[in-house]
Amino acid sequence: MITREHCAILDAGDPLAHCRARFDLPPETIYLDGNSLGAMPANVPARMKIALEEEWAQGLIRSWNDADWYPAPQRTGNKIAKLIGAGQDEVIVADSTSVNLFKVLVAATRMREGRRVILAERTNFPTDVYIASSVAQMTGCELRCVDPDEVLASIDETVAIVSLTHVNYKSGKRYDMEAVTRKAHEKGALVVWDLCHSAGAMPVHLNRCEADFAVGCGYKYLNGGPGAPAFVFVAKRHLPDMRQPLTGWHGHAKPFEFTHDYAPHAGIDRMLTGTAPQLGVIALEAALEAFEGVDLEVLRAKSVALGNLMIDLADQQLAGLGCTLASPRDASQRGSQVSLAHEQGYAVMQALIARNVIGDFRAPDILRFGFAPLYVRYIDIWNTVAELKNILETRAWDNETFLTRKSVT
Amino acid sequence: MITREHCAILDAGDPLAHCRARFDLPPETIYLDGNSLGAMPANVPARMKIALEEEWAQGLIRSWNDADWYPAPQRTGNKIAKLIGAGQDEVIVADSTSVNLFKVLVAATRMREGRRVILAERTNFPTDVYIASSVAQMTGCELRCVDPDEVLASIDETVAIVSLTHVNYKSGKRYDMEAVTRKAHEKGALVVWDLCHSAGAMPVHLNRCEADFAVGCGYKYLNGGPGAPAFVFVAKRHLPDMRQPLTGWHGHAKPFEFTHDYAPHAGIDRMLTGTAPQLGVIALEAALEAFEGVDLEVLRAKSVALGNLMIDLADQQLAGLGCTLASPRDASQRGSQVSLAHEQGYAVMQALIARNVIGDFRAPDILRFGFAPLYVRYIDIWNTVAELKNILETRAWDNETFLTRKSVT
Repeated sequence: MITREHCAILDAGDPLAHCRARFDLPPETIYLDGNSLGAMPANVPARMKIALEEEWAQGLIRSWNDADWYPAPQRTGNKIAKLIGAGQDEVIVADSTSVNLFKVLVAATRMREGRRVILAERTNFPTDVYIASSVAQMTGCELRCVDPDEVLASIDETVAIVSLTHVNYKSGKRYDMEAVTRKAHEKGALVVWDLCHSAGAMPVHLNRCEADFAVGCGYKYLNGGPGAPAFVFVAKRHLPDMRQPLTGWHGHAKPFEFTHDYAPHAGIDRMLTGTAPQLGVIALEAALEAFEGVDLEVLRAKSVALGNLMIDLADQQLAGLGCTLASPRDASQRGSQVSLAHEQGYAVMQALIARNVIGDFRAPDILRFGFAPLYVRYIDIWNTVAELKNILETRAWDNETFLTRKSVT
Repeated sequence: MITREHCAILDAGDPLAHCRARFDLPPETIYLDGNSLGAMPANVPARMKIALEEEWAQGLIRSWNDADWYPAPQRTGNKIAKLIGAGQDEVIVADSTSVNLFKVLVAATRMREGRRVILAERTNFPTDVYIASSVAQMTGCELRCVDPDEVLASIDETVAIVSLTHVNYKSGKRYDMEAVTRKAHEKGALVVWDLCHSAGAMPVHLNRCEADFAVGCGYKYLNGGPGAPAFVFVAKRHLPDMRQPLTGWHGHAKPFEFTHDYAPHAGIDRMLTGTAPQLGVIALEAALEAFEGVDLEVLRAKSVALGNLMIDLADQQLAGLGCTLASPRDASQRGSQVSLAHEQGYAVMQALIARNVIGDFRAPDILRFGFAPLYVRYIDIWNTVAELKNILETRAWDNETFLTRKSVT
């Protein structure tokens, strides 16, 4: 039997325990929703104050040069690169994940002109499928959506692009990036990886896996703030041939010469479109300092331990209470979250949130718990399962307040 | 002869003089570059502090509901709508101008399928032309670029879309929105207006002109901060037929049901793609309070008066010093800026900036001066021309520091 004391001992021995102080967290709250919106790194407000009151208000337009605003998307991209196994100048911060996905998917179809299948996955995060569908329509391709366990077998010589999310948003199931990428390359296809639920939560090895393209989000495990700008990775070998369709001036080889014809920048800057969302980039760049000195293997080890603890405690405490595990039990197939299914999932999660245990709900019945290893403690997992047990045992979820759906989840 | 005293009298009688205190401006600086980056409204840092320290740090994911983050793009769009003659729920804040332009151009080509010409203008801001070119390539259309004075005559029955910027970024020349739109509609074409250099600087009458689509920037005369999110307008009559290609989840009818198939939101929300860049939206929304109680006709009258003063003073003070007027002399054809051409424009502008008079340079020879009527004073114009005169008379620009181009302007 796992005890509360055992969890406290794990926290006492946690090599990342000191990182929690890098975040400004509300008291008495357990936050297991960093896979939806990461907690705020404590250094962000001071950095933003300087950005506003000094750089913007006093420096005005001069700050694009003098405060180094202009190279911030590249600089921040290079910091993210270290977290995802990319090289320098292969990653840049820009736009949203959806917009970046559109760019890379269109560019990739142009690099595989004889082929017309975009292979995607039915259970992927909807925006990825919506965007792929639009790209297919605009480029004369066919979007082929298959079940997760059919992906590998479905990669054949007709496939131009395989578009997958590394870790599934709902189940937390993780693809074997290396195996999928290898198979795709054997068949002559390109792979686009969405890293929304892996960047910042575990080491990602884009270049070791010979990945082609990747996109990802700044506001989950990277803690960049609500709607933080996203990032995009293009393997250096593809940059010269890569023609993305959102050809705004910041992707131009010489944006400030204001020439009439578009000529893409030679490097990763070609993935830019409009002016960088600078306040968001500044917050994201500051937020990344929370990873300073963090060994990503240690981060992953803690993430796995937190997930295993959650599953073990659920087995131990929640048996017969209507919850079933909706994530892989095998940690090697799991990201940094554990999902539980319960037929009253929405109300159960509302009841948990009312007790200051914050996860989230994903239709139709998923209770989602994300573990950001920089600030989640083992004791948080214990307390979460204890509250959940109490809610289920007492049917505390069976309450008008919790059962009534808000318009937005 | 216009005197300094005359300018001081104009300031004393300025009905918008009180608005200057709404901005946090550096002392001893004349800022005539609000058409590149608007000055910071003084209320922004306090609003951002709450957004960071309370809404993000304490509220965490709950703030999407509890702090009304989720409807912020719509709410802020509705505030912008009042400045541009649009109705409620016809404007939304999203992405960058370039990205929004891509969306509306593709959507518009889909509404004029029998036609294949996108008519644009050679001297338009480059990003508009680059994006139109990419859209033409992707949709099988032809991009036809003509000279500014050929636009009206070039609108014929082959034209699907006319894509123009209301006020030219370099010359400040303003199109007659009503006449162009009328001609386009007579010929069966749709019109996309880029309002980057007009929104917030003058009344714009989108619905009175029966405009179809518009896009514009949040960081110039709207003062939303560096890289502030942009806005997009779709006339209500077009919303049901409008299919934009960046079909991210936030444009979905029911984004939080996470359905597999894309179904666009019935209203302006369909123009959304990914998660809103919330920190940027919050800054922009706060910044718009600077327009509270401001009559846009009064704003325009001051803008015209500032421009006329600049031109009159240039005539009076700069004759024979190598400067020529590069903006329309007739205020009715001008936006809220005056451009002067000088063969050493770059160095002259650097010399001006060194004296704390901030305008900007646009290649090959344009000194650009923008007048944000909420915070620019008549005396600023006097002092600008006086400094410029001194720089030209003494050839103060002829100095290594000023002549050497920085990588970014």
